[in-house]
Amino acid sequence: MDADHAKAVIADLGLAPDTIDNTDLTQALLVIHAAVGTPESEEARKLLGEVAKAAKKMVADEHLVFLAQYVADERIRKSQFKAATKWLKKAKEMPVDELDVADFEQTTGVGVSYTDDEIAAAVAKTLADNADDLAKLRYQIKATKLKGQVMRSLPFVDSDAVETILQAKMAEALGPMTEADIAAAASGKKGGKKGGKKGGKAGGKAGGKAGGKAGGKAGGKAGASAPDGTDAAPAKSVRTLPVTLDDPATLPDAPVTLKYSQRTSVRHVLSAGLKWSGAPVTVAGWVRTIRKQTTMAFVELVDGSTIKGLQVIVEEDKIGFAELQAAATGASLKVVGTIVESPGKNQAVEIKATTVEILGECSPDEYPLAKSRIKLETMWPLAHLRVRTKVVGAAARVRNVLAMATHEFFQGIGCQYVHTPLITASDCEGAGEMFRVTTLLKEDGLVSEIPATDDGHVDYAQDFFSKPAMLTVSGQLNVETYCAGLSSVYTFGPTFRAENSHTSRHLAEFWMIEPELAFADIHDNMACAEDYLKHCVSTVMAKCSEEINVFDQYVAPGLIDRLYNIVESDFTRITYTEAIRVLEAAIAAGDVSFEKKVEWGIDLASEHERYLCEQVYNMPTIVYNYPKDIKAFYMRLNDDPEAPAPTVAAMDVLCPLVGELMGGSQREERYDVLVERLKEDNMPLEPYWWYLDLRKFGSVVHSGFGVGFERLVLLCTGLGNIRDVIPFPRYPGEALF
Amino acid sequence: MDADHAKAVIADLGLAPDTIDNTDLTQALLVIHAAVGTPESEEARKLLGEVAKAAKKMVADEHLVFLAQYVADERIRKSQFKAATKWLKKAKEMPVDELDVADFEQTTGVGVSYTDDEIAAAVAKTLADNADDLAKLRYQIKATKLKGQVMRSLPFVDSDAVETILQAKMAEALGPMTEADIAAAASGKKGGKKGGKKGGKAGGKAGGKAGGKAGGKAGGKAGASAPDGTDAAPAKSVRTLPVTLDDPATLPDAPVTLKYSQRTSVRHVLSAGLKWSGAPVTVAGWVRTIRKQTTMAFVELVDGSTIKGLQVIVEEDKIGFAELQAAATGASLKVVGTIVESPGKNQAVEIKATTVEILGECSPDEYPLAKSRIKLETMWPLAHLRVRTKVVGAAARVRNVLAMATHEFFQGIGCQYVHTPLITASDCEGAGEMFRVTTLLKEDGLVSEIPATDDGHVDYAQDFFSKPAMLTVSGQLNVETYCAGLSSVYTFGPTFRAENSHTSRHLAEFWMIEPELAFADIHDNMACAEDYLKHCVSTVMAKCSEEINVFDQYVAPGLIDRLYNIVESDFTRITYTEAIRVLEAAIAAGDVSFEKKVEWGIDLASEHERYLCEQVYNMPTIVYNYPKDIKAFYMRLNDDPEAPAPTVAAMDVLCPLVGELMGGSQREERYDVLVERLKEDNMPLEPYWWYLDLRKFGSVVHSGFGVGFERLVLLCTGLGNIRDVIPFPRYPGEALF
Repeated sequence: MDADHAKAVIADLGLAPDTIDNTDLTQALLVIHAAVGTPESEEARKLLGEVAKAAKKMVADEHLVFLAQYVADERIRKSQFKAATKWLKKAKEMPVDELDVADFEQTTGVGVSYTDDEIAAAVAKTLADNADDLAKLRYQIKATKLKGQVMRSLPFVDSDAVETILQAKMAEALGPMTEADIAAAASGKKGGKKGGKKGGKAGGKAGGKAGGKAGGKAGGKAGASAPDGTDAAPAKSVRTLPVTLDDPATLPDAPVTLKYSQRTSVRHVLSAGLKWSGAPVTVAGWVRTIRKQTTMAFVELVDGSTIKGLQVIVEEDKIGFAELQAAATGASLKVVGTIVESPGKNQAVEIKATTVEILGECSPDEYPLAKSRIKLETMWPLAHLRVRTKVVGAAARVRNVLAMATHEFFQGIGCQYVHTPLITASDCEGAGEMFRVTTLLKEDGLVSEIPATDDGHVDYAQDFFSKPAMLTVSGQLNVETYCAGLSSVYTFGPTFRAENSHTSRHLAEFWMIEPELAFADIHDNMACAEDYLKHCVSTVMAKCSEEINVFDQYVAPGLIDRLYNIVESDFTRITYTEAIRVLEAAIAAGDVSFEKKVEWGIDLASEHERYLCEQVYNMPTIVYNYPKDIKAFYMRLNDDPEAPAPTVAAMDVLCPLVGELMGGSQREERYDVLVERLKEDNMPLEPYWWYLDLRKFGSVVHSGFGVGFERLVLLCTGLGNIRDVIPFPRYPGEALF
Repeated sequence: MDADHAKAVIADLGLAPDTIDNTDLTQALLVIHAAVGTPESEEARKLLGEVAKAAKKMVADEHLVFLAQYVADERIRKSQFKAATKWLKKAKEMPVDELDVADFEQTTGVGVSYTDDEIAAAVAKTLADNADDLAKLRYQIKATKLKGQVMRSLPFVDSDAVETILQAKMAEALGPMTEADIAAAASGKKGGKKGGKKGGKAGGKAGGKAGGKAGGKAGGKAGASAPDGTDAAPAKSVRTLPVTLDDPATLPDAPVTLKYSQRTSVRHVLSAGLKWSGAPVTVAGWVRTIRKQTTMAFVELVDGSTIKGLQVIVEEDKIGFAELQAAATGASLKVVGTIVESPGKNQAVEIKATTVEILGECSPDEYPLAKSRIKLETMWPLAHLRVRTKVVGAAARVRNVLAMATHEFFQGIGCQYVHTPLITASDCEGAGEMFRVTTLLKEDGLVSEIPATDDGHVDYAQDFFSKPAMLTVSGQLNVETYCAGLSSVYTFGPTFRAENSHTSRHLAEFWMIEPELAFADIHDNMACAEDYLKHCVSTVMAKCSEEINVFDQYVAPGLIDRLYNIVESDFTRITYTEAIRVLEAAIAAGDVSFEKKVEWGIDLASEHERYLCEQVYNMPTIVYNYPKDIKAFYMRLNDDPEAPAPTVAAMDVLCPLVGELMGGSQREERYDVLVERLKEDNMPLEPYWWYLDLRKFGSVVHSGFGVGFERLVLLCTGLGNIRDVIPFPRYPGEALF
């Protein structure tokens, strides 16, 4: 075999250069190429590679050439290929000039072609056959099933053509998606099986609420305003993210070994791509999938550094091949091998193993995640294992990137990180129900042994902190004290709510970010919140592009477009007073109706907030200067003669599909005004002595806001349930692990 | 590699048997041993281990052998070793036969040797040079400084020889320690000034203890063994830190206005120095000091961005001059003016004000921090204001820098940040007393109203989590689950201990960092811990140089030298078995006596740990491979036939003056062994079902360690009480704010 000639042929046909390593395959390709040359059609060129692969099923080279000629002439295409090889295999004893060509052509559909009208007719028939299901399930019907029926009725029809026509006909038959369609989608159930009866708790609820209000809207936009916002949007994003991982230019010329762990990360190998081709490498991780053949095994190896797996090829003569027969999904492996260009289209490179070592086995019979598609809820009791799945692992990586983006942003604007206390004896803000922290209760203690005062009350003087102590609901008041010394600060830590809330948006323990900026007013505050959110989203889009693409495709169609919308919009900023005016005008024009009445002074409900940012402005929207009476005592009183009643410099950042994401305010820095506010709200002054001190001693204008970190992760992943974006969720009745 | 031969070589050289676990090191040892054999001198034998360790800094084996030959011939000894490796590192591209041997020998002092008389003469001269200090400070004089002077006068002199002779000469000059000497040592005060009357609380206490035992010791070492270790070291550092702030080159040509806060930070103005001279600027902050004259006022303005203040000059014709007469320490100001070159020696630039505005006044009669020198303890009840002071503000900045250095380090090595839960229903590790988290107790509740079961026990089924729930004492077990999916992870979050502990080193709520590295063994773990600590310390030295200089000068003399020692040392790593041998040898030689008896199997006490890292090695020291019986069940059982009883792959990082700073282990990854360990410890298996699952499904070798974040801040600031390095400390009886 002339190697240079073989290389040229392989290149001509557009096959991977290392195809040449497979001698048999190359031999067959040379025979084929000598006979039929290089076809013009790309599909045909690629298919000749398949012909060569099929060579060992055939006895004679002449059969190979016979098939190759049909392929080169485009008389046999992808959809017919399987039938063709099958036919030839049966006829393998027959010399080529004795083959029954007519039978061959009929069996493999040579010459068969369909007009669009023919396909449309078949589609129409299939839709008619499924009329009942279609009426019941509408967009929840399983489209792949319908497509299969059409294709069976038109042998060898082109798959793409059927798909296009089927989608058009379904849209024609069903009309635009309705609110109910969206609600059904939101429930997270595929149609058919359970008929969408019993969606995820949260999805169903949120959907029901939103259903009422959006009824009057054009269906076309409904896609973007799916109520729960997460796994509900029915249409895929228009844009995709370039998959970048790490820039190969930032990587050295040879594989980098991770410090303290003698291996190279999967992320680095995939990022480097062909740059490291030919280099020896050691990788370690877990089996995502494994395919075993007699002479070769294919492993998709993951190590958590990226969502993508690394393909590892193990040939039968390699050390560990025998052992590998016992390996299944979840087993841990160490692989020593060489990085080579991959012939597959899913990756630029793969590993050709020299040795494979099974570090830890994983029995498919016992492993709860052995199956490939498991519902997210099913994994809640498996929180110790679920990070190994694609979706939960991707959410964990996004969470990590968001945490670092948060630090980068605030450090970058000169803020210092402050750890405010978790345990506190002051129930200052009254922001919610609090957990008590105590050493008075024992594991198996008797109630009668709990220390009591003479009049039978719990004796907190004997508790650890000598007084009642709670878990904090916010670090804001504490961090304001540091703002009054370090100027610009932020917290990032856990926060607690003892609320008996089982929704998809609430946790008993969650992480919160609370910046507090000295010498900053409400307008500075809004600018900071907008820039922070954009920084977070764009960082995730850059560093987790693979993950976001997967979420967009499988979890939250439209996610990428929504993220671009955040990054590219100049957020709308309107006063509360203006927002009420806009809502009232929309009602008067008959554009919308709400469950809760709109009038100046109400606390905006979720339906109002979402109408504003989704329907009116279609971008993140900041509403500010709220009525004093519905806001906390520490928010700065405005001088706002235009408003019907006093307002305070509060702000809420509302996001399409998500609703309120951040809330903040300029703080009341005037001692007398603050004391007055506390008195008006019938709050005692004494517990606030230290907070008031800040206004006595060198008080300054300052502002801040709070961000629920998990909500930010929901926003960026498109996931629908907050329990899926924190490692070990805590909610009523659940504190496992 | 022939394991038996390798073992024999290791034993021959007197190195720890488990050296063999380090493959690279062993490989280098074999090369060296083959070339130079086993030297007679013990020092040379040990030093060959160091040569092997240096192998990775050298390119070629021949360099290794070149160096080893000098060592074996005792022509290069300990004191010359560093210079030798440094020289070779520079020459690493050079073939061995082209090395400039003459230069090498001269640079490394080959052939240099000093008689005892020569050394004694140099010591005598140094003592004469320091006669005044010696008379005044007696044993409180910094012996390391004297030793340094001697050593500089005799290049490559043997360090031990100098130490011995110096101690003898000092004892000769000063006579035995008097009661006054011991009291001075115990008080932890600099000699002379206050005569050691009134040390810091903690220093006094611990010192009393140490004083008793140190009496019998040579006085020369007293300086290095200051008892409390924190604010006690008696002499200032030999070195200072260059004050850098931000590099002016990184700043634009004109003053940068902070985003969201229309002003320029004090740190930026001081960093830019003359670069911005002549430019208009707006600054805002608080008055640290103010001097008012008839025609001019001088304000030192601080804004928390750095420890330094910015001098502001206000002339009588400027807007605000009159108003300024009412301003005092703590008042907040906004100043518009021009940056001008300062005639003063303390700063390059100052602000010439155009207008000054008092934002918030601060009455000197009411302001608790109006006085300039307030004890740290006095400020505990003023935690809402104390960040405005120099020391607490500086500690807050160091804390911020350390937090970011932590994230940078772990992200830099590919670890992902994981938020492990705070509230937990599993009391797995049993690492300490836990707080209970509950909603069963009400603020003013009656004991009789607490839900009880029929037999009178607290009915946790009615509690928020339907079972007893606690605040976590460690995230380790939880984070291991993420390590088994993301490979390399770390936590950084709050941790709790309900221990009734009032020491200067304990808090009920503190922050902890817990990395967990997949595919990493105990040696990787030690390397990671060492690099992490060095990264933290060097980052603080670079970014908080002003703060560290102030701490060194006013709070913790010697701090800078200690920090350099950490950054520049190759941490000693010895097995527990070796550590016991070293301690026993020191006792046998009469060098030291301990309160707690030293024998294989004991848990090392603080006195042992500090003796090792302060007296024996004088650098951070990692002790590893501890007896199984004194360590936790999850630590990996060693195959350690040399040890008298089974050991586990645990490690502790000990630091001079601080003691144990980090602790960690390789984790037991073998299911059967782990189950056995739990059973041996009489622990139930059931609560660990999920932890055991990790060993069932794709188990991998992994290791990790824990760092008490506040202890790291103590180490870097030299502060003595943990309550001063966390914003709002929680301890028994205290949960204010």
